[in-house]
Order: sequence, then C-alpha cells, then structure tokens
Amino acid sequence: MNYIAIMAGGVGSRFWPASREDKPKQFLDITGSGQSLLQMTVERFKKIVPVENIFIVTNKKYKDLVKEQLPELTDNQIIGEPSRNNTAPCVAYTALKLASLDPNANMVVAPSDHLILKEDAFLKQIQKALDFASKNDALLTLGIKPTRPDTGYGYIHFDEGKNGINPVKSFKEKPDLAKAKEYVDSGDYLWNAGIFIWSVKSVLKAFENHANEIHKILSSSMDVYNTPDEQAFIDDMYPTTPRISIDYAIMEKANNVFTLPSDIGWSDLGTWGSLHAESVKDENNNAILAEKVVLSETRNSMIRLPKGKLAVIKGLDDYIVIDEGDVLLIYPKSEEQEIKKVRKEIENELGDDFL
Amino acid sequence: MNYIAIMAGGVGSRFWPASREDKPKQFLDITGSGQSLLQMTVERFKKIVPVENIFIVTNKKYKDLVKEQLPELTDNQIIGEPSRNNTAPCVAYTALKLASLDPNANMVVAPSDHLILKEDAFLKQIQKALDFASKNDALLTLGIKPTRPDTGYGYIHFDEGKNGINPVKSFKEKPDLAKAKEYVDSGDYLWNAGIFIWSVKSVLKAFENHANEIHKILSSSMDVYNTPDEQAFIDDMYPTTPRISIDYAIMEKANNVFTLPSDIGWSDLGTWGSLHAESVKDENNNAILAEKVVLSETRNSMIRLPKGKLAVIKGLDDYIVIDEGDVLLIYPKSEEQEIKKVRKEIENELGDDFL
Repeated sequence: MNYIAIMAGGVGSRFWPASREDKPKQFLDITGSGQSLLQMTVERFKKIVPVENIFIVTNKKYKDLVKEQLPELTDNQIIGEPSRNNTAPCVAYTALKLASLDPNANMVVAPSDHLILKEDAFLKQIQKALDFASKNDALLTLGIKPTRPDTGYGYIHFDEGKNGINPVKSFKEKPDLAKAKEYVDSGDYLWNAGIFIWSVKSVLKAFENHANEIHKILSSSMDVYNTPDEQAFIDDMYPTTPRISIDYAIMEKANNVFTLPSDIGWSDLGTWGSLHAESVKDENNNAILAEKVVLSETRNSMIRLPKGKLAVIKGLDDYIVIDEGDVLLIYPKSEEQEIKKVRKEIENELGDDFL
Repeated sequence: MNYIAIMAGGVGSRFWPASREDKPKQFLDITGSGQSLLQMTVERFKKIVPVENIFIVTNKKYKDLVKEQLPELTDNQIIGEPSRNNTAPCVAYTALKLASLDPNANMVVAPSDHLILKEDAFLKQIQKALDFASKNDALLTLGIKPTRPDTGYGYIHFDEGKNGINPVKSFKEKPDLAKAKEYVDSGDYLWNAGIFIWSVKSVLKAFENHANEIHKILSSSMDVYNTPDEQAFIDDMYPTTPRISIDYAIMEKANNVFTLPSDIGWSDLGTWGSLHAESVKDENNNAILAEKVVLSETRNSMIRLPKGKLAVIKGLDDYIVIDEGDVLLIYPKSEEQEIKKVRKEIENELGDDFL
C-alpha cells in the first residue's frame, strides 16, 4: 500500500508576521484559495491514496490545529513530534510507524507548505516514483527542472537514466550565482524540493546503514507504534535523536538514490517575493490578498490584509504590506531576506509576543 | 454668569480613517495624551467656570458618546442637533437656551477639536474677553497671531484698539500664498480660530438684526428651553433653519466686532500634517502614536497604530501610516489634502462601511 507523510512542523519564519509560532505558514490560507497550504496538500494527495493513508507529521503543539483543519483524519494519522530535531528523525519515526502498520508500505514524504500548480503532472510523477520504489530498493526524489539560476535552493546533479528515472550523482548545497548559472545551463541539475518516495523497507535499511543511531533509538520498542503507548515512547526517545536533515543523514550517503526531473509548477513559497511571483497580479504587478484596496501609484507590491479590512495606499513600489493580527509590516520586497533577522531582533527586544 | 458652549458636532473627515462617522476626531485621543480632544477642551474650561456651566453642542447621534466621555455632565448640558445646519443655527440655539436659563449669561463658543498648548495665556484672554463682553454690547473673537503665511485659514483684519481689544475691520477668506504673505508681513491680520465670546443679549440682538429667520424659527417657543419638550421642538424646527456659518451670518455683518490678538500655542489640528507638526518627534522627525514600532530608514512620518500593535517599517519618507479599525492608510504626507477626496471616492464605491 501507498502512504503519504506530510511534513507540517515548520515555523515559516520568513512569512512573518502572517506566519506565527502558534499558527505557522502551512496552516494559513496564504494564497487566498480559501484553503490552508496543508489542506491544499492533503486534497492533492487524496486523488491518489485513500484519506486513511495520509499522515501529518507535525510538532505536538500543532496537533489540535491539524485536527481542526483536517477533521477527516483520525488521531493516529496525526503524528506529534515532541521536539524539533530536523527531518531525519522525523522521517525515521514515520517510516517505523508505517512499517509497523504495513511492512510492505511505500511512502511519499512531502512538505505541507509548497505550491504545485500542475497537479496532474505532479501526481503522475508521484505515481511513477511509487511504482518504481515498490519494485526496487531505491530512494527517489522529485527534482524540479530549474527555470532560473536561483541561489536559494540546493541542486541535484543527475546522470542519464531510464524512463525518466535517473541516478543521482550528488547533492549540491545552495550555490552562488555563477555556480547556479553553470548548473542551469548544463541541463544536468535539478532543484531539490524535499519530496521523497521510497518503500519503508528501503528507507529503514538506509537509516540502519547511514544513520544507525536514529534508527536504534526509535526502533527500540517497535510494539508501541500505533498503540496508545506510542506518544509516551516518542516523548521520551525522540528528543534524544541526533538533529540532522534527511539530506545529510541519508540522501548524500546512499548509493541507490534516483531523481525524476519534474515540471510541476512548483514553488516552495519560501518568501513573500516568491508568493508574489506565483500570484495573480493587477495591471500594476501588485499581488493583492485582500478584499478591498484603493491603490494609486503603487506597483510590484504584495499586499495582504485581514478579512474585512480596506487599505488605501499611495506611492509604494516593490513593497510588501502585511497586516496580520498585532503586527503591521511595511517593507521593501527586495530586502525581504532581512525579515527573518528583524523577527529575531523583535524576539530579543520585545519577547515572543509578536512571533 | 459665564457659560461655555463647546462645538462637538463635526465629522473630521481629513482625519479619516482615525476619525469616523460614528466616532469623529473630537472624541479620539488623537494626541496620545490619554484624553480625547473634547475631554481636553472641557478640562481646560473647568479652570474658569464650574462644570455645570459647560455645554456640549453636538449632533444628536453623538450624545451617548459625549455622556460616556463626560459623565459629570447632566443631560441638559448635552445639546443634540437633529441635523447639520452649519454654525449659525447652532450658536443661535445655544444662545437662546442659555438666555432662558440666565438672561445675563455671557458665553464662549469654542471648537472641541483644537490644540491649545499655552493654556494659561488662553484662559487669560478668554477671561479678559468675557469681562469686556459682560460690560459692552460687543461680539468678540480670539485672533491667533500668525506664525506663517498659511493659506488654510481665514484672516481677521483689525484696527488698533485699547487694552489689546481691537475693532475688526473685516474678515478675509482663505487667501492665496502671496496674499497670505502680505497679511502676515503687515502685522494687521490674525488667524480666525472660531473662538467667540459675547453676552447672549448681544449675540441674540445680532441674530435679530442680521439673521432674523434663524432667530425667529428658534425663538418661536421660548418656554420649551431646558424642559423635557426642548428636544421635540428642536427636532421639528432646527432642520428648517438656513444653513449658514456664524461668520457669514453675523460676524461679517455686525459693526460691533472686536478681536483679541492671542499667542496661545494654537493649532486647529486640521490634518495629519498639522498633528505631526505639533507632536513630539523621534530623532528622524517621526511622530509616533503607537506603543511599539521598529523603524529603519523611515523619516518625517506620522504613525498611528491601535493599542498593542507593532509596526515594522522600512524606507518610508514623509508618509502617514494610520492603522485604524477596518482601514489601513499609507499615504504621502505632502499629498494628504487628497484624503478627503479619497474618502469620498470610497463612499461612492463601497458605501459608508469604511467612513
């Protein structure tokens, strides 16, 4: 059987002040679609697996939020991490839990907060990867065909393979612009989107080989999974696992890694700027997530307001204007990489009231 | 006895979106003092008359707001106009009401929404004017010594008089800049601040002579004033009075008009810009009416936020940023005269939800 593990434990600090500690990005209707990014992600996967096979992996404190947004899920489908230990422990935990349900499970690991505009193409690739993973001891990742020399993503260097399933030569860290241009021009590189496909057997074998400590800790009581004792066991053991990403722990070490070059209209919606880029714009290139705005001489800007609020704005070019709860942000879009730092300064100065 | 009539029926549309139809400027803590402009005005006059002698003249729909902000006033001290008929009917009504209480009353007519920084000097001038008015058949107005050739005010042309009480030669409409400079340079002109002092006898005589229709309508049932029947009478008759200002109706026609040149730290707080000018500023000339702001590269701006809200702003120069209820205004300060027009457009397009 095929299962989906949707990773929904992030903080989304670059989307502050919309994204907050108590309601991060994945739980927000950030695109104005009427659904949160998490809800959109679940809807997408419901087209290829029954809803019972979709698991949400989140921080314990967001379990209630997940239940509220996805009432069709059972409690056992909402996995609560007691601490933020990066993605490797998170994937190992989920794989062990699924293995205990179904030793022959294949699983997709997918972020909860990305945008995928070409849903059919995406699902076709996922299905193809699941088929391959069910028949081969292979770790697969979707690779996004790069459309620009973006320095904000990691890249996957691949070899020519069969049927669009290509062996991975290596993973590359976020490059500088020259390197990124070289990658894109060569045609041999893809963006690493953090979407993985494998059988639980293959991924657990990879953990045993390359990240044994995580595997040992989390498999020390296999009989607790999917029982009332699971949470207590996890609360004890999970925080003791090494904090490491799945890329470092497994993908960069294993020699059975494959990638499927994919053209799926993907965006990680990493920043307000990337949301602006993906959004419908008005005639002055403004992306407006608001019921009512009266703009003059305002261009290339991203405006997000609470329901029922009106903004009257004149003379802003290339700005983000986010009015969210107790914070109003008015910031040059080209300098949005500073927002994470500003958020940190506010934490230091004013405590976590506004986070 | 001396009485104060504080005019509190205005809409303050140039202070939108802080000033709203259901809570105009005079009811707001626009200076951050902790008191509304109306409350500040009452406090000021309580130093020279007993609180029982202070009357608030407002639109009927604001009577509850006045009661809330000034719980020490009796219902009879809160005068509710059933319609907006400009200042002449408003003054006539109040003068008749006071005359029925006390035929020898002297009264001050004062706006509720102005700033007066030199309170002692102001009260000294008011006292002097009341003394003169009680002994002479005279209509007095405070004239503000102009500090700049402002084209936003009317001017008073005066002759040399005795003891700082000068006969008025004429009232001048808002001038163009050249004219305004001429006025200021001559030393013979003052700003008309709409602060009047007279006995009810003198002002009612002036109404009989110069605005007889208003007088006739409102004095047709003198016995209703200060009785439970007053409001019904006013509701019937007041809307039928000619809509005309006290300046046109009386001041420009009477020949017993005097002015007291006054240096009282006055501002009519007519616009956000004038509030900015009068406010304490930070090191970058920003006037901040907010608990918490994180500003960078932001100068010469006026920022007003609701209680508990944080603004993070970068790169604005000479802006007004007003976050008030269901409206967020981000507008160049130098173009703030457009706000009244924008407000009108919003009324036309979106109805009165945001007014």
